Amino acid sequence: MRILSGKREVGAFLEKLNARGRGVSPSVLSETEKILSSVRRGGDAALRRYTKKFDGHENLRITPANIKAHARRASARVVSDLRLSAGRIRKFHKHQLERSWSVKEDGARLGQIIRPLRRVGVYVPGGRASYPSTVLMNVIPAQVAGVKEIAVAVPTPGGQVDPNVMAAIEMLGVDEVYSIGGAQAVAALAYGTRTVGRVDKIAGPGNVYVATAKRLVFGQVDIDMIAGPSEVLIIADATARPEFIAADLLSQAEHDPLASSVLLTVSAKLATAVSDELDRQLSRLGRKKIATESIRRFGAAIVIKSIKEAAETANAIAPEHLEIMTREPRKVLPMIHNAGAIFLGHWSPEPIGDYSAGPNHTLPTGGTARWSSPLGVYDFIKRSSLIEFTEKGFSRLAGPVSRLAMAEGLDAHAETIHVRSRK
Amino acid sequence: MRILSGKREVGAFLEKLNARGRGVSPSVLSETEKILSSVRRGGDAALRRYTKKFDGHENLRITPANIKAHARRASARVVSDLRLSAGRIRKFHKHQLERSWSVKEDGARLGQIIRPLRRVGVYVPGGRASYPSTVLMNVIPAQVAGVKEIAVAVPTPGGQVDPNVMAAIEMLGVDEVYSIGGAQAVAALAYGTRTVGRVDKIAGPGNVYVATAKRLVFGQVDIDMIAGPSEVLIIADATARPEFIAADLLSQAEHDPLASSVLLTVSAKLATAVSDELDRQLSRLGRKKIATESIRRFGAAIVIKSIKEAAETANAIAPEHLEIMTREPRKVLPMIHNAGAIFLGHWSPEPIGDYSAGPNHTLPTGGTARWSSPLGVYDFIKRSSLIEFTEKGFSRLAGPVSRLAMAEGLDAHAETIHVRSRK
Repeated sequence: MRILSGKREVGAFLEKLNARGRGVSPSVLSETEKILSSVRRGGDAALRRYTKKFDGHENLRITPANIKAHARRASARVVSDLRLSAGRIRKFHKHQLERSWSVKEDGARLGQIIRPLRRVGVYVPGGRASYPSTVLMNVIPAQVAGVKEIAVAVPTPGGQVDPNVMAAIEMLGVDEVYSIGGAQAVAALAYGTRTVGRVDKIAGPGNVYVATAKRLVFGQVDIDMIAGPSEVLIIADATARPEFIAADLLSQAEHDPLASSVLLTVSAKLATAVSDELDRQLSRLGRKKIATESIRRFGAAIVIKSIKEAAETANAIAPEHLEIMTREPRKVLPMIHNAGAIFLGHWSPEPIGDYSAGPNHTLPTGGTARWSSPLGVYDFIKRSSLIEFTEKGFSRLAGPVSRLAMAEGLDAHAETIHVRSRK
Repeated sequence: MRILSGKREVGAFLEKLNARGRGVSPSVLSETEKILSSVRRGGDAALRRYTKKFDGHENLRITPANIKAHARRASARVVSDLRLSAGRIRKFHKHQLERSWSVKEDGARLGQIIRPLRRVGVYVPGGRASYPSTVLMNVIPAQVAGVKEIAVAVPTPGGQVDPNVMAAIEMLGVDEVYSIGGAQAVAALAYGTRTVGRVDKIAGPGNVYVATAKRLVFGQVDIDMIAGPSEVLIIADATARPEFIAADLLSQAEHDPLASSVLLTVSAKLATAVSDELDRQLSRLGRKKIATESIRRFGAAIVIKSIKEAAETANAIAPEHLEIMTREPRKVLPMIHNAGAIFLGHWSPEPIGDYSAGPNHTLPTGGTARWSSPLGVYDFIKRSSLIEFTEKGFSRLAGPVSRLAMAEGLDAHAETIHVRSRK
């Protein structure tokens, strides 16, 4: 792994990080547009045609009986581990629930009504990257928010259904599951077909076609986010153990050749030790090829002068995952402004957050932690303002409102006041 | 105003409403793209060039001394009305503040850290449509959220500065103001130039170039929303007064020929009376031409069978503004799922919410109230998850996490557990 220090060297690397995974190829864009408009016009027939073409079958729905049958094939151990995770995730997300409120004043009641979205679609990737944890992390916040209708789309290439994914779905009590994927699944959820009812929001990760389709249907329907490649940033001092850091960096790197794994440390010695340890661990990995390419392109150990400088660099990167492995990690926390999830101390490796800790593993990537948040209950609710005046309350504001309307040149606005004052 | 009834007639009208204002012309798109990339590459020089071209001057900044000087020209009455509004808006939005939280369990601390965005840009339209209320409604939620740096961009065509806008800006203590507008202002806020520092989020309305620029820079920077044409839906029964309803419909219609003003009523008699009254009031309006076109194209009185049917229609439209003028408006409320702001009763005309009630006047349009909310304090904060395990807490989850990682085929994820368990 490269070891960097000095403003210019580090700056050039950060620029490269920043440009990572931006932009969509024109061919992906036009192919996705074609699929979207075909499904929009053709409905189920188009959906079946694409499912046949890409996944080799024409079934659109996995019935509740079939969900159960497939789930039965999951290992009992994995099911109980998923159950533990589901419980912890649900418990954490319940803290995010917000309540409607209203306040009374003399002559008025003002407030905010919070309602769950009516209907949500969750996309779960299928095939090689088939993740039951995706089901938990996307469905549970929607359930906690109170969403009544949750439809899951999970492609089943070659008709292969993942028992673990079905076990997660069954465990959560979801019974509306479609064996569809890609841009065609996004189109069906966004526009609706005879079989698949239109949803209000689509959540969940997917390949470049899924991501592009989500970007294109946004506005017709809400989307959670466009996730970029995964990333981890680790701030460490001499108290950190090189083998922990190396393992944590590699757990990001194995995701994707575009994933980024960066260590920021005040200890040049630690940087070297991590780099050596990383080479050692790499050789043992199943996904060695992916991890090697990711580390070569977007991995680095950066030697900085102080923890303060580390925090500033972290804020500039705004990483998806930030691990702080220093003597007193809590002291670093107040300096951190931009990060999706912050893992404190030596015993909080990022994968514990991927599966079982409780917080969501869907996090802002590519620097968007500057302004956005982990997926949460707040993504599945919406608010309406409530405004209720009595005649008395109205008359108190009548003058100011009509004058401000006139000052803005909107006399019909002012007239709504005058017509009532005259009555 | 047209009076509609019957499924087919109403359905056709709602489809027309739904298609309103969708899509951007290719020429606007390419012109906007050109401006964005010029400012991105050329910085201040390009920004000055466009400001010269569109607004006839080259000043980029309005100094605090100049803000004050212009504000002094505002009418004392309007300033005190704005001050009343600002106080009410601030009071309402304070209820939206959220606090960071964390929970301890044996061996772990989990939580959510809430931080304001660091730096926000507020776009305030200039020229003919110059609205001090825009300043209040966008700046105050950001201030309540705790945003430290707020930069306002307000174009000053021909060097004309609106005293009321400056009074609102001064009143809120904002001192970073740029006399720039259009796509060039959005570009400067999104990318940064020597004079204008890059922001994390851009809020505020604007013309089609501003809206298109916001759409294009989204991802580089956050945006509040892409606002469509304004709309009001009024649910009324025979207890409602035709002259109140007509005035309220016209107050939307005067905004924009694409604005939509619709009455849903169980009383055919009321529909006729509103239509007659509307013609009468129209003739008196300053913005008669705009309002007439809007009513002709997107105005209607729809006669329905029951309040329940009205609520269902309202939910399908998901209007920006919903007024409920029935005998017992609170009884209708639980049936309403989708609406930006809900105005209850005869004494809550929509303009009271535009200026002084307290809730935000920036609301989801074009049916997006299905999933989105009024602009609020929650738009100017972001959350980071906090995950902190001790060795003991870690070892309790070590088994489940490593097994789930292996079940998903991610052995480097499992290795972060193994390397710690082995130590």
